[in-house]
Amino acid sequence: MSGVSGATRLRVRYAETDQMGVVYHGNYFAWFEVGRVELLREVGWSYKALEADGFSLPVIEATCQYRHPARYDDWLEIRTTGRMTSPLRVEFTYELVRVEDDRVLATARTTHVAVTPEGKPCRLPAPLREIFA
Amino acid sequence: MSGVSGATRLRVRYAETDQMGVVYHGNYFAWFEVGRVELLREVGWSYKALEADGFSLPVIEATCQYRHPARYDDWLEIRTTGRMTSPLRVEFTYELVRVEDDRVLATARTTHVAVTPEGKPCRLPAPLREIFA
Amino acid sequence: MSGVSGATRLRVRYAETDQMGVVYHGNYFAWFEVGRVELLREVGWSYKALEADGFSLPVIEATCQYRHPARYDDWLEIRTTGRMTSPLRVEFTYELVRVEDDRVLATARTTHVAVTPEGKPCRLPAPLREIFA
Amino acid sequence: MSGVSGATRLRVRYAETDQMGVVYHGNYFAWFEVGRVELLREVGWSYKALEADGFSLPVIEATCQYRHPARYDDWLEIRTTGRMTSPLRVEFTYELVRVEDDRVLATARTTHVAVTPEGKPCRLPAPLREIFA
Repeated sequence: MSGVSGATRLRVRYAETDQMGVVYHGNYFAWFEVGRVELLREVGWSYKALEADGFSLPVIEATCQYRHPARYDDWLEIRTTGRMTSPLRVEFTYELVRVEDDRVLATARTTHVAVTPEGKPCRLPAPLREIFA
Repeated sequence: MSGVSGATRLRVRYAETDQMGVVYHGNYFAWFEVGRVELLREVGWSYKALEADGFSLPVIEATCQYRHPARYDDWLEIRTTGRMTSPLRVEFTYELVRVEDDRVLATARTTHVAVTPEGKPCRLPAPLREIFA
Repeated sequence: MSGVSGATRLRVRYAETDQMGVVYHGNYFAWFEVGRVELLREVGWSYKALEADGFSLPVIEATCQYRHPARYDDWLEIRTTGRMTSPLRVEFTYELVRVEDDRVLATARTTHVAVTPEGKPCRLPAPLREIFA
Repeated sequence: MSGVSGATRLRVRYAETDQMGVVYHGNYFAWFEVGRVELLREVGWSYKALEADGFSLPVIEATCQYRHPARYDDWLEIRTTGRMTSPLRVEFTYELVRVEDDRVLATARTTHVAVTPEGKPCRLPAPLREIFA
């Protein structure tokens, strides 16, 4: 299968919960961002350097299925896969797993376009195209 | 068409932006929550009262298409429609519109299940079933 | 007394609560920001325009006393006063009041310095100096 | 000196930045919460267990001095000290340090009261009183 995968872990913060006693659904997207940033780092890239070069990778679509709630202090693993879906687009998929019992709490997908400093869509930088091919 | 619709407005906060100079994509979901809470209020319900009665409506799926970035200080309208998709589920769809030029910045959908205090899925309360039929 | 004052209102969002069933203490600072932005707007300024001119007003100190918890769906008033404490600094104080019973839930203060695009402290723009004198 | 100290590290998330290109000032408080939770864990306590026992430690005052901005992707160390200031109160102080150059970016303090499930102030649990004496 195409694409490149990696995993990173984090602990749920109190700030991320809501009064339902579980993590607020909107807060998962910051975790998925951690997943893709760490995936980029593992393959030798930094999103920070990408931005310093004038590129950005804004999200054009995001979707998440919430299967079981993440709770305060849970130790979570984010398993991220990135792949190009066109020369201008990269798609990341995520599995959010509670480490304690290896239960999949959520699955998600974000789609990104490469954009120039002027905000115009552009081809992904060549090394990224190779990595995510 | 089935379902019930309403609209509410809000102004983008500085806290909601990120260093790309636009609103962070994960923050849109708090706005959609404002949209559905205000829709419930318009039809004579309060989500707060619903929770006080022991029910909750957790999100089981959320998806958003980002068409044009929302920016700091933008005055936005959230147009929300709610409809039952089963006796246990309600689905909300959202259009996020910049008031100044009536441009649709994003469209989104969240799916919710009614849940008892014990966390078991249950039928939506009867008055809600009527409203969202 | 010196300075200029104003008030603005907002409703507590579900996203702003935590599992203690009240608003997360860190989230109050985004409300105080709404308070000072609206105060600037009332006196004929926009923070957005200020930034477009190359200035910014970063926070160098923030403090908040939490007296009574703000809760989901509370309708709140933020009473904000701004005053210059030096040609380079402006200080805002805040009273956060629950409208229903006029109870003061929190008081706070933020101190800001004017900064050039290069990140150097600078004198506040002349019209702001007059307003906040 | 009285009290107990510890340190923990985290990486700045993109979601935590704002359009000034630095971390939003209100977001530091979630980091300080990570600092005190990890300090409690190091001394053999978990805040989660504390809550399960019916206690909570809400913040009644928070203050932060921002010296140098934290930026996206910075690797930060939070040095936290906790000490009792009365049988009902515990105070935490924080130093936020950028690991790369050991620069202190911010210092902060939060004051907490122990509260029963009914929301009444109460004495800190005995083992906590010993640890933070």
